[in-house]
Amino acid sequence: MSASRPDDAPWRASVLTLHPAMFPGPLGVSLCGEALARGTWSLEPRDIREFGRGRHRAVDDTPAGGGPGMVIRADVLSEAIDAASPPDDPRPRLLMSPRGEPLTQGLVRELAGGPGAIVVCGRFEGVDERVIEGRGLREVSIGDYVLSGGEIAAMVLLDAVVRLLPGVMGAASSGEEESFENGLLEYPHYTRPRDWEGRAIPDVLLSGDHGRIARWRREQARALTKARRPDLLPEG
Amino acid sequence: MSASRPDDAPWRASVLTLHPAMFPGPLGVSLCGEALARGTWSLEPRDIREFGRGRHRAVDDTPAGGGPGMVIRADVLSEAIDAASPPDDPRPRLLMSPRGEPLTQGLVRELAGGPGAIVVCGRFEGVDERVIEGRGLREVSIGDYVLSGGEIAAMVLLDAVVRLLPGVMGAASSGEEESFENGLLEYPHYTRPRDWEGRAIPDVLLSGDHGRIARWRREQARALTKARRPDLLPEG
Repeated sequence: MSASRPDDAPWRASVLTLHPAMFPGPLGVSLCGEALARGTWSLEPRDIREFGRGRHRAVDDTPAGGGPGMVIRADVLSEAIDAASPPDDPRPRLLMSPRGEPLTQGLVRELAGGPGAIVVCGRFEGVDERVIEGRGLREVSIGDYVLSGGEIAAMVLLDAVVRLLPGVMGAASSGEEESFENGLLEYPHYTRPRDWEGRAIPDVLLSGDHGRIARWRREQARALTKARRPDLLPEG
Repeated sequence: MSASRPDDAPWRASVLTLHPAMFPGPLGVSLCGEALARGTWSLEPRDIREFGRGRHRAVDDTPAGGGPGMVIRADVLSEAIDAASPPDDPRPRLLMSPRGEPLTQGLVRELAGGPGAIVVCGRFEGVDERVIEGRGLREVSIGDYVLSGGEIAAMVLLDAVVRLLPGVMGAASSGEEESFENGLLEYPHYTRPRDWEGRAIPDVLLSGDHGRIARWRREQARALTKARRPDLLPEG
């Protein structure tokens, strides 16, 4: 699906934003931050305003046809994209947008298997439709709610991708038993102490019977998914 | 639904995390950062590790019944919650979790109308199920993908809420014509220049006929929603 990269090359993220100081932010800490420091991935924030017009470096203008808010200009944004991504750049160009295709763990895996991504963060009412068409931006939505800009959405996407890159999770997780990886919500977890405020760890988990434990977890995951997210279950 | 707050009191967020240094991060910039500085909302990061056990302040332990990863202890997390939120605290207690109810613009509005929120950020494999029950945590998911922790998810939730607080968006947006507010994806936006790389702004938007423009936008929004997100359309 995606162009692959040599094993030792970092997964390359370029983020186009009006707030480059937001990055790396939380991505510079913990799992993602350690992977960034190791060179497993790279993060290049690019300031769209560098391509703004006039003395005030204006990046936006009023919407054609009227209405509230401001729209990011096609000429400004396209120049920012072209500077970050030459025509032969194999990386997909994404636009974080509530109109986009929903981000799923499948899309995360697809992106993690590629060379990186150009991630455009919108602000204000949105970006001029023509730059989406003209630069082939793939619109991606992290959920059905409205944010003040695309930056935190970009962080969500990058965090989800980076944790799947080789060596990032290490032994911390198998990646096999996780949420959505098998299409079900995750079963309940317990750890010490055995009794807490009169609540005990379910006996089956202390039985040492691995078959029974695996069955119990599967049943719990299925029941939880049916109760909370029946839309995730295969039909019929 | 939610307890209300006096008009001049800030919307109060307490975030329980193993990475308090991630906050305010991107929430300290732009719209949310300005509202934080003005006192429209307050943000108190709380370090779960302060309640850790032993010399190393351990917060987690291996999962009962075996399996990969580590689970945050019920006793540790409950003490952190109790310290941040007395029993008469009217704020809802949320746990960012891929198992939770999906975050929607409706839930965002509900939270914005309340006094604030306690937001618990999980890490590792998750938290002991008993603390979810024992402290009445409402699990909220920002989408069907897996993150390295709940912190960026908490930022998503807080950003979505804060922009709806009184005075935050100002005249920047009407809040009326936005994505999901009317159940449809947003229509395409255009701004100057009129022609860009051979692509023109649609004539109707330059017609000055407000009725026609409103009709065109409605049709565009409906067609886009039908093509990309038929699940959002009312049935039939």
